Amino acid sequence: MLRAATSALKYCGALGGCAAIALCTLYVTRPTAQGQPPADTVGNASNASPIYGVTIPSGYRDWELIAVDQLVVGKLDQLRAQLGNEIAIKAFKEGKLPFPDGTIIAALHWNRVRSEDNNKVLDGPFPGAQSFVVESAVNVQFMVKDSKKYAATGGWGFADFKNGKPGDEALHKTCFPCHEPAKAHDFVFAHYAPTP
Amino acid sequence: MLRAATSALKYCGALGGCAAIALCTLYVTRPTAQGQPPADTVGNASNASPIYGVTIPSGYRDWELIAVDQLVVGKLDQLRAQLGNEIAIKAFKEGKLPFPDGTIIAALHWNRVRSEDNNKVLDGPFPGAQSFVVESAVNVQFMVKDSKKYAATGGWGFADFKNGKPGDEALHKTCFPCHEPAKAHDFVFAHYAPTP
Repeated sequence: MLRAATSALKYCGALGGCAAIALCTLYVTRPTAQGQPPADTVGNASNASPIYGVTIPSGYRDWELIAVDQLVVGKLDQLRAQLGNEIAIKAFKEGKLPFPDGTIIAALHWNRVRSEDNNKVLDGPFPGAQSFVVESAVNVQFMVKDSKKYAATGGWGFADFKNGKPGDEALHKTCFPCHEPAKAHDFVFAHYAPTP
Repeated sequence: MLRAATSALKYCGALGGCAAIALCTLYVTRPTAQGQPPADTVGNASNASPIYGVTIPSGYRDWELIAVDQLVVGKLDQLRAQLGNEIAIKAFKEGKLPFPDGTIIAALHWNRVRSEDNNKVLDGPFPGAQSFVVESAVNVQFMVKDSKKYAATGGWGFADFKNGKPGDEALHKTCFPCHEPAKAHDFVFAHYAPTP
């Protein structure tokens, strides 16, 4: 069971299929003021998520940080970060719920590995210290808010990409059910990390 | 020894005093084109780091993400993120070394805690899954590149703040010695996390 679960997690790179922990972010069909999706969000069948038609938003890696987290399931061990577009960040900072249309949240997942280089430095002053860093990228997920288009799924469209390719329909059917327990926070698991 | 180390880490919020793992970032006296530090980086004695005179750059929480990591030392367990100003991000993306003057790297450290809310969601489909999220902020550190001003410390000035207040001189004396092993990467531990 755990092996099966771990396998599924590796596939979707998240938790509970596309689901869980501040990850399923959506994208692509965000309407513009004219009701048309931005040019860079129009995907064809091969690069858009099933069910939702969400593609990878250009430049998402440069978005601002919402929070970081870690997920461990059996041998799967990931460090993760959630980034948000301008609309998302503004809503998080203001505590605005529900998130406004146009919100996009990106969840970036990396394999977590022990850093031997860092540990060598730490070992003198701090014996036993362990540093873990990100290694290879696993996948990226998006949640896109469009309260009309995605009314049946809480106003959110979901997408899960691995190596630039979206997961299949079965995977994307798991996104919303997993996010439902976070209904009180508009189906979003992530909370804005405090400023030190 | 470990207890002492842990205590020191709690104090400085990092590793090896101000040191370690992509954290000591500097700030404040970044020269402008006119050779004057930006207005928002000029601190008085009470809000600038000892030795280096680095203050907290305004808006650093909105900077772009470099990478994330985790540090464990005894009971200390932190999730961390490194953010960079525009000069820093450009240099990381281009693999430019040494980092140019004006580079600022911020290292944000939070206490890592188990998310019972997330684990409830996960427990059905993924028994044994564990989600960890950030709780309270511990401290923030800065590295500011000014090859002339900070020539004696690899071109970097360092700062460590907890609740907006800089650590003492003894703490800041540990920054550069700890970063020296990373000389091949211009004394910076962090590497740019790949884009999923």
